[in-house]
Amino acid sequence: MAQAVELPRNEEGIAIALGILKQQFGDRFHTGQAMRDQHAHTTTYIKPQAPDAVVFPTSTKEVSDIIKVCAAHSVPVIGYGTGTSLEGHVNAPAGGICVDLSTMNTILSVNADDLDCVVQPGVTREQLNTYLRDRGLFFPIDPGANASLGGMASTRASGTNAVRYGTMKDNVIALEAVMADGRVIRTAQRAKKTSAGYDLTRLLVGSEGTLGLITEVTLKLQGIPEAIRAARMSFPSIDAACQAVMTTIQYGIPVARIELMDELNVRAANAYAGLELPETPLLLLEFHGSDNAVVEQAEMFGSIAEDAGGFDFATTGTAEERNKLWKARHDLYWATLQLRPGAHGISTDVCVPISRLAEAVTGAQAKAEALGLLAPIVGHVGDGNFHCLVLIDLSDADEVARAEEFTAYLADEAIAMEGTCTGEHGIGQGKMPYLVKELGAAVEFMAAIKDAFDPQGIMNPGKIFGPRR
Amino acid sequence: MAQAVELPRNEEGIAIALGILKQQFGDRFHTGQAMRDQHAHTTTYIKPQAPDAVVFPTSTKEVSDIIKVCAAHSVPVIGYGTGTSLEGHVNAPAGGICVDLSTMNTILSVNADDLDCVVQPGVTREQLNTYLRDRGLFFPIDPGANASLGGMASTRASGTNAVRYGTMKDNVIALEAVMADGRVIRTAQRAKKTSAGYDLTRLLVGSEGTLGLITEVTLKLQGIPEAIRAARMSFPSIDAACQAVMTTIQYGIPVARIELMDELNVRAANAYAGLELPETPLLLLEFHGSDNAVVEQAEMFGSIAEDAGGFDFATTGTAEERNKLWKARHDLYWATLQLRPGAHGISTDVCVPISRLAEAVTGAQAKAEALGLLAPIVGHVGDGNFHCLVLIDLSDADEVARAEEFTAYLADEAIAMEGTCTGEHGIGQGKMPYLVKELGAAVEFMAAIKDAFDPQGIMNPGKIFGPRR
Repeated sequence: MAQAVELPRNEEGIAIALGILKQQFGDRFHTGQAMRDQHAHTTTYIKPQAPDAVVFPTSTKEVSDIIKVCAAHSVPVIGYGTGTSLEGHVNAPAGGICVDLSTMNTILSVNADDLDCVVQPGVTREQLNTYLRDRGLFFPIDPGANASLGGMASTRASGTNAVRYGTMKDNVIALEAVMADGRVIRTAQRAKKTSAGYDLTRLLVGSEGTLGLITEVTLKLQGIPEAIRAARMSFPSIDAACQAVMTTIQYGIPVARIELMDELNVRAANAYAGLELPETPLLLLEFHGSDNAVVEQAEMFGSIAEDAGGFDFATTGTAEERNKLWKARHDLYWATLQLRPGAHGISTDVCVPISRLAEAVTGAQAKAEALGLLAPIVGHVGDGNFHCLVLIDLSDADEVARAEEFTAYLADEAIAMEGTCTGEHGIGQGKMPYLVKELGAAVEFMAAIKDAFDPQGIMNPGKIFGPRR
Repeated sequence: MAQAVELPRNEEGIAIALGILKQQFGDRFHTGQAMRDQHAHTTTYIKPQAPDAVVFPTSTKEVSDIIKVCAAHSVPVIGYGTGTSLEGHVNAPAGGICVDLSTMNTILSVNADDLDCVVQPGVTREQLNTYLRDRGLFFPIDPGANASLGGMASTRASGTNAVRYGTMKDNVIALEAVMADGRVIRTAQRAKKTSAGYDLTRLLVGSEGTLGLITEVTLKLQGIPEAIRAARMSFPSIDAACQAVMTTIQYGIPVARIELMDELNVRAANAYAGLELPETPLLLLEFHGSDNAVVEQAEMFGSIAEDAGGFDFATTGTAEERNKLWKARHDLYWATLQLRPGAHGISTDVCVPISRLAEAVTGAQAKAEALGLLAPIVGHVGDGNFHCLVLIDLSDADEVARAEEFTAYLADEAIAMEGTCTGEHGIGQGKMPYLVKELGAAVEFMAAIKDAFDPQGIMNPGKIFGPRR
């Protein structure tokens, strides 16, 4: 397992803060090893680094109290939602206090007339959507995991629906956050648009807890569409599938999801679920709209995709049939792991201009083969974003090294194609070397904001920039 | 005419910078009074404050050279696009150098497959759309004026299409900018989404030239829709019209434009263009999509609006008929000025949650009447954004004072309704007092960014925050 960089610990400050917070939070403050280890679960091949304690606040005031104690004694503060981030975001390389916001999970208001809601950061997306269903509303961002909405905002998450509904940056209207000195700010009001000063909302979205902890999120909502239609089409090659995606997007067909599975993934799905899909690249789609509109959209896609060489087109409007049609995608994670039982799945995440997508995906396939790695590919291809799930034995140092070489290759290639080393997983610890390669001098200005907002460097240290002071 | 705050001038530094820049830029450097006055045209009732010189760079390198000279001698730098900003953004309260970017007007690349383009900041939106038309593409943001795209990014502009396509924050993929010390940064690559570090793109969008000058803009483009359909409907009251808007948005009908004109505006339009519209609140709409989809959308709107009390529904699909249908809106500015010939029109700009829109609009009407002001209202009502065009005699101090009272009332009411004092015009000089009312402590963090990026305070001083040092 790869070593994460350790940062110097402020033992004295940590000891004092632990004492104060234990007194203030009683049985909502934990220093037991199991609890600490659980909060350093990184879902990567980066070694876990546990915090010194975990505290469960229930209000913005309490989050502010915690940060004030940590600020007074120069102690790291690491925000925690559901621990589903993928680049070591919750690691504590200098120790410190993990602030678990899962107990701040109240849906504060739903404004149906305005298509928005205000939630505490620990509310998960499934919790919110369950609550909204009877009101005819939903929140579209779906990163796969049942993540917390505060965490999703912090990492600028997106997922399968982003091609239609955007990412968290497009769906957060305003934030309340506690900053590094304990001050509480609200970044915007509830209006749908504003040009009032610097966009602190978008600055905090994706800041990974390094500038402040999000304590309230105002989100855009959508009406549940009248109709949802699914479709599926196989292609002779990645090139053909990507050509179909490009043309579909250019025609302005408002696809809600358009997912690519490569040959390897389709084979895994067939084996896992007894499906009989052609073992070639596959596109899965979903359309949202009126009854007429979704039928028309699916037909237009079918015609475009056939021109690109697609075959075995299937489309349906009923929920039950939709689930069957998408079964290969829904089971993907478990099916893929069965390609190599016992292996650990490591997810990569690059995003390129869509015109370069076919080249990027086939390049990744060739590189994985050259390195002797099993790395099936799934893509949110309407955005040019794709993930390789590298199946490795974490105890095999050589294999881990090859996986790291593969990750580096992907990032370098994406950057060379005017793309990004991270489409939706963030930088965390894992992508730090590539951020500078990608954005150069711009990173110095990011660091200037970090230093201005958090001069002691206590907010999630060792992330995005590496050690800062 | 209202006095703008004057800031202390660094006479010595300005004199040195003028000398150096004159030598470097020759006949692209101007200190003549007419040129200086033209660049302080503020389109508001704020008094113009001319810069000491105007320079026309032609490359990023030249912009960097200018800013380095200004940084070395602590001289203000004011970016200038087309001078159509509405809150005194281009004023020079401490003098300094106006950098007119209109000569950096090259369309650098159009990537049709990726639906994006890269342009220099002086390219105007009409120039871009003329260039794109033959390629079947368009750039949707339309703030009314034929503004420069760099300026539109700097003020986070939007306009009539924002309900469907978003604002500049949603349509800028990446920026190149020259910062306060002359360093050049690129905020993102060309991928459609990214989670690579802090969102400097969104930080610079709407920063009004106070953090850096934008020298390249990468923009999202749209395919020209297969069909465009227009519609019009009259309503017995503002309440009824706003109810129709809310229901339309809730149903997820993807209107491309939905504009409200109040009674006063409709009366002006009838008088100006010989129309015979019912002199009651009017909604004008545009739908973009497939031939079938736009017909269905217009029908759905018609049915919703009738339920809300709407009458005199008209809809059409041909370009010629569309222009007739929208004539009242197209002529609005000139028609409105005819309500009081010789008067100056001052535009206000607030945005509220859509559930409060009717209350905000009728409140504004009542307040204008109470103050004896003529202030017809037009709204981008799908976003809850509306403008009153206050028709005043700028030489009448009492009237100007009443107009200022009206503006203050609108801002205070919008903020009290969880809205914003500025939906799309920015802060500039005009809205500074309201920014702090609206966002409180958050403004301190905006100021911390300003100080970190521009410690000398040379970038467009006296805007957003007032004098900083």
